[in-house]
Amino acid sequence: MNKPKILILGAGYGGLTTTVKLQKKLGVNDAHITLVNKHDYHYEATWLHENAAGTLHHDRSRVKIKDLLNSSKVNFVQDTVVAIKPDEKKVELENDVLDYDYLVVALGFEAATFGIPGLIENAFTIGSINQARLIKQHIEYNFAMYNNEPEPKQERLNIVVGGGGFTGIEFLGEIANRIPQLCEEYDIDRSKVRIINVEGAPSILPGFDPQLIEYAMNSLESRGVEFKLGALLKECKPDGIVIEKDGELEEIPTVTTIWAAGVRANSLVEKSGLEHNRGKVEVKPDLRAPSHEDVFVVGDCALIWNKDNDRPYPPTAQIAMQEASVCAHNLAALVKGGELDNFEFNNMGTVASLGHGDAIGVILGDKKLFGWSASVMKKIIDNRSLFKIGGIGLVLKKGKFNIF
Amino acid sequence: MNKPKILILGAGYGGLTTTVKLQKKLGVNDAHITLVNKHDYHYEATWLHENAAGTLHHDRSRVKIKDLLNSSKVNFVQDTVVAIKPDEKKVELENDVLDYDYLVVALGFEAATFGIPGLIENAFTIGSINQARLIKQHIEYNFAMYNNEPEPKQERLNIVVGGGGFTGIEFLGEIANRIPQLCEEYDIDRSKVRIINVEGAPSILPGFDPQLIEYAMNSLESRGVEFKLGALLKECKPDGIVIEKDGELEEIPTVTTIWAAGVRANSLVEKSGLEHNRGKVEVKPDLRAPSHEDVFVVGDCALIWNKDNDRPYPPTAQIAMQEASVCAHNLAALVKGGELDNFEFNNMGTVASLGHGDAIGVILGDKKLFGWSASVMKKIIDNRSLFKIGGIGLVLKKGKFNIF
Repeated sequence: MNKPKILILGAGYGGLTTTVKLQKKLGVNDAHITLVNKHDYHYEATWLHENAAGTLHHDRSRVKIKDLLNSSKVNFVQDTVVAIKPDEKKVELENDVLDYDYLVVALGFEAATFGIPGLIENAFTIGSINQARLIKQHIEYNFAMYNNEPEPKQERLNIVVGGGGFTGIEFLGEIANRIPQLCEEYDIDRSKVRIINVEGAPSILPGFDPQLIEYAMNSLESRGVEFKLGALLKECKPDGIVIEKDGELEEIPTVTTIWAAGVRANSLVEKSGLEHNRGKVEVKPDLRAPSHEDVFVVGDCALIWNKDNDRPYPPTAQIAMQEASVCAHNLAALVKGGELDNFEFNNMGTVASLGHGDAIGVILGDKKLFGWSASVMKKIIDNRSLFKIGGIGLVLKKGKFNIF
Repeated sequence: MNKPKILILGAGYGGLTTTVKLQKKLGVNDAHITLVNKHDYHYEATWLHENAAGTLHHDRSRVKIKDLLNSSKVNFVQDTVVAIKPDEKKVELENDVLDYDYLVVALGFEAATFGIPGLIENAFTIGSINQARLIKQHIEYNFAMYNNEPEPKQERLNIVVGGGGFTGIEFLGEIANRIPQLCEEYDIDRSKVRIINVEGAPSILPGFDPQLIEYAMNSLESRGVEFKLGALLKECKPDGIVIEKDGELEEIPTVTTIWAAGVRANSLVEKSGLEHNRGKVEVKPDLRAPSHEDVFVVGDCALIWNKDNDRPYPPTAQIAMQEASVCAHNLAALVKGGELDNFEFNNMGTVASLGHGDAIGVILGDKKLFGWSASVMKKIIDNRSLFKIGGIGLVLKKGKFNIF
């Protein structure tokens, strides 16, 4: 028996979907499949803004990986990847070294901080369950602290969100709903709390439909969100930030800066020796690395050009899961024989949540949605993502059904 | 009309009970009654350890004062007392100055820190709703932080309680139950968390029945509480404490020190010019200040000797409410005519909670209780305290009925 070894790194949308699909395509004797992940759970990264705001418990956003795997076909290793060595066909983990015949790199994103002083030290990012629940606790702790000091500190009540992209806007929608509850909880006047969005572009959600952007801004402003558009974050300090707008510097006191203005691929990719373009692997149509035929890259670490607008596709859960589907097919074809497929993005639409019961989106190519109907669509999308990794059982367990 | 002005300072057990009883004894035309309190709510101070541990929501421990008062008889002023001037028959508030014909001082306790370096700056006390919910959030925040640092910090998981008296032991009982939940919530191994009690005396609950003390220690130790008895807190730093035991110094890393080892009367009493004994007014049998006939003192600011053991009665809710009853009677007698009563303590017993479903206590003079029956008795006592200030309606709204 000389079964090929398939090694999958990361159990996010890309890696986990690849694994789940692959275990259906291959028999027990076809291959050794190993999935490596830092935690023993998968999390729905697109739900983390709700956990961070405290509007959804973090356990709702995560699933034990073992519950999703067929243990006779897939070996799960809980460990952290330290280095990828494609020339040696090896991957170094903190506690082990694994070799492979086929590798799937699905290690996701990390925050890009563009060298802004103090950002790494003093800002939060919404990138994991650990970070999301820390943000929730940090905000609550500061609200609890507010009435315990002889001189109340405004920086405890100001919440700054850096970036008006998807994550930033979705977090704003949740936190705007959460703040009145926190104010009641800690006997704080709502008018004392500021929620501030700082975005370098002249508009939030760049590239989105202008009518929907206006709807989103109205919805958020009506709940007390202030927008600072065309404003750059210059510095992040422990008790405040400095922004520049129209050539003027402004200081805003805050102990809570959520940085949601940029992501990059996991930096292990850049260090691996795989050919890359600013940290991402510009994969071939079959999702393999051009420099290494035995390495697939899916999700946020892969770069694929959208020929319609000559720009790379943005890193989304939707594209990662579609890539995973092709990746699983191609791995099965390599192992058992068959044609390799090429990846084609099938845009199912995009919906951004604005908090419970409100959202904006575009589906079916050009159909605009907003308000309740968009919010229902968002929940359908969230449930669909659960369905793809865990079937109807997982949807019933962790799905979102609070549509009224 | 020259109605006497009765001014009551503080809406804790003593002040609120006095007010509630007095409004039943006096008609609308008998007196102007004014109650001053810092917050617009009364809180059950003996329940705060549950709020601090996070086992009971703080809203369960507080009641809006206006809901308890007859507004045609009592004027409620939400303000903070700044100074008591008995020689001028005036009380200075932050925003007003009030004069009186009869004054009731019921301003409760504050923490006594015995000059231990760093204690005021770095330790928490369980003395108010604001402090209790901050402790809850502080502990949760540090548990949330633990898995977010490359080098996990043990001081985030060590919880030190200074003092093995009533408050300290009751808090230990709650936090020992809460810790396993927090560990599950934040993916932390329970064995990494330490809960440490530091008590200067050779035993916890000094003066309590030895058999019950042993029961309490066993109950708490079985849930992971470590006792350092005969140990003195020498210093409290932001990230640790220093204790001395048997002549040896020991450092314990912790960011969470709860100081429950001593209380003193509100320091405004000492500054007021009322004759006092180490900050407390040694009241006459009718609860008036010996130096000022028109000033009553009840609760933690009053000093009354227990002739049985020649020691002062400890500051408890039970004694404060019994004093309030006499105080209300005597005020009514002064206004409408009649005999003044003398205070006699009627010991109903003492029960210390050890967490949900467990407690120890002595009732009916010498009947010992422990375990479930003591825990039920504790809840009956808690509900009785609600009944006394707000009747059966308040018991039904905020009472404790989870006896199984």
